[in-house]
Formats: sequence, structure tokens, C-alpha cells
Amino acid sequence: MNQPVDNVQSERSRLRRQQVLDAASACFREYGFHGASIARISKAAGMSAGHIYHFFDNKEAIIGAIVEQKVERSIEMITRFESEADVFGTMVERMDTGLEDKTDPEFVGLWLEVLAEAARNCEIARIVQTADQKMRERVTRLEKIARQSRCIESEIKPEAVAEVIMALLEGLGNRIIQNPEMDKEEVIKVLRVAAQAILQA
Amino acid sequence: MNQPVDNVQSERSRLRRQQVLDAASACFREYGFHGASIARISKAAGMSAGHIYHFFDNKEAIIGAIVEQKVERSIEMITRFESEADVFGTMVERMDTGLEDKTDPEFVGLWLEVLAEAARNCEIARIVQTADQKMRERVTRLEKIARQSRCIESEIKPEAVAEVIMALLEGLGNRIIQNPEMDKEEVIKVLRVAAQAILQA
Repeated sequence: MNQPVDNVQSERSRLRRQQVLDAASACFREYGFHGASIARISKAAGMSAGHIYHFFDNKEAIIGAIVEQKVERSIEMITRFESEADVFGTMVERMDTGLEDKTDPEFVGLWLEVLAEAARNCEIARIVQTADQKMRERVTRLEKIARQSRCIESEIKPEAVAEVIMALLEGLGNRIIQNPEMDKEEVIKVLRVAAQAILQA
Repeated sequence: MNQPVDNVQSERSRLRRQQVLDAASACFREYGFHGASIARISKAAGMSAGHIYHFFDNKEAIIGAIVEQKVERSIEMITRFESEADVFGTMVERMDTGLEDKTDPEFVGLWLEVLAEAARNCEIARIVQTADQKMRERVTRLEKIARQSRCIESEIKPEAVAEVIMALLEGLGNRIIQNPEMDKEEVIKVLRVAAQAILQA
């Protein structure tokens, strides 16, 4: 497919690749997936279309790399949580990080565009579904550790618990578009109550 | 703005207006807000562009009418819930309806497109925010009735509780795009636990 980061030999090349991803993210947010032509992305990145094609075969591949970076960052965070002494408490407490991440205006705009496109474009659907499977597995593992640490036994499949935690966090992004005045300080209190209950479901 | 439904005198006119909304919904889902030209909508609706402009000034006005219908349907449901003997129990039990509504593939595709557009288009943002305020007020009222019925007293603002219930439900739509194999039967069990805890927050 595309040149994976591992093979990009120079730091300069890595930076230029990131420049394309940042410019493309901004264009997808502003013009939508279809409105963000390679010409527009090339202009925003300040490099030729040829340079962009050197890194990515097409716009789908750019989305693939953006989603991959997003998953990598989330997995780094989950890995840190796994090493905490109190995993259950950390998951509940760190709902504030989830709230901040998911309601970041730049992230929300781009993410909604990716999902809207995934609903009509098989290639993008495949990308988000593959990424999501990785995320779900890690959230499920984290949640299992959290439950074990509190000796919580349940008949409910851990995958369903992970699904609802992820739904709750994802939904906050949609909410901030509809209610930009959201009272985050109050919301975080309810989120923690919800997380605690979900983990004990 | 547009001809409100009240003024549309004949049933024929009402049906034709609905025909535009249905065709536009399908086009927005398939091509996105920008790709769904009035020409495309007119072809899908089987009527002239002139006819469409007879009902709606522009695409934003069509989105306005679609969102309004969505809110009306939700408010009808909330009104039914309010008249139930056990409002708290109904809210928890009827999370299944929320799950089904929010994960309906036709609805999700359209809704994600509307939100993605709202993130970059002030006019669409204004439409979804106005509609959301109406919805939030009704969800908050329903939730207050539910809490009163169980004598639940809380320091947390009811608006924040409504916000989290809405986030949870909205998030399910995003989830079905990323995990079409979602185990709904298991998820509904966790949703009910979450709803119960949130309402008691």
C-alpha cells in the first residue's frame, strides 16, 4: 500500500509525511472528504501533488494514516492506564481525559467527516472498522484488568461493556457540536458515575 | 423562511414536500451535503428544481426541515414516556428503543453527515443547536419526573444528567459504523445499567 513510517528513512521525510496528514486533516474538516481534492491538500501542505502521491496512493490512504495515528495515541494512553496501580479507579477518574479528547473541536470535525464518509464508502468503512477492532480489543483488555482488580464477576460479555464505554465517549463529540455550551464540569461528574456503573455491569 | 407545514393547504402538497425531504435525505446520505446538488435531489424526488424551491429556499432549509421532523418524532416519544406510570423504569427499559433508533443505518448515515456539516457550516450548526436545545429541555424534564418518582435527590445539575444520557445514545450510532457486528442483545443489558446509574447520579 503506502510507504509505512518504519521505512521512511529520514526525519525530513517523516516530517513531510506528517505535513501532508496535517494539511489533509484541515482540508477534510473544512471541505469534507469529497471537497478536499488532492490539489487543495497539496496547496495547504505547500508541496506538489507529486510529493503527496509519493507518500499516499489516494485520499483513502491518507484517511487510513490519520486513523492509524489516532488509534496509536489512544493505545499509548491505554497502555499507561494498564500500568497504574488502581486500573479501575484510573478508568473512572480519567473520563475527564476522554471528555477533553473527544470534544476537541478540531478532532470532532474531522472524526465526524470520517464516520460520515465511512457510512457510504466501503474503503473508509474497512479502515475505521479495522482500527476499531484494535481499539475494542485494548479497551476490553483494560476493562477486564479493571474488573479483576475489584473482583467483579459478571454474566455480561466484557466486549459489550467496552462497547458502551466507547459509545459514551464517542457520543460526547457529537454532543459538543449540538451543545457547545456543555457544562463540562458537571458532565464529568455524571460520566464518572456512569463509568463506575458500566464497569460493574 | 419556508412555507411551514401548517400553511401547506392540500394533502397533495404535504406529500410532495415529504417526497423532497425523503429524496434529499437519501442524496445527503449518498453524496454528502455538498455533493447532493438541487439537481440531484430534484432527479431523486422526480420533480423539477422549481418545485423544490417552491418548498425550500435552499439545502440548509431542507436540512432544517429534516432535523425538525426528527425532533418532533423524538418529542412524541418523550411525551408518551412522561405519561407512563413508572417514568424511571420506562426510561431504563426503553433504552432498547434508543439503541434501535440510533443504530438504524439510514438514520446514522444522514445524521453523521448533518453533524459533520454542522462542524463547518454556521447555518447548519444553528439548526442542530436550536433543535438540540428543544430536545435537551424535554429530556431534562423527563429525567426530572423520573428522579422525582423515585425520590432521588442530587447535587448534580439535571441538565448534565440529560447531556450524558444523550451522549450515550448518540454514541451508539457512531459505534455501529465502526462495529457493525455489535452484539445488541448484550449491549442493551449494559445500557440499562448505565441509564439506571446516570439517572441516580
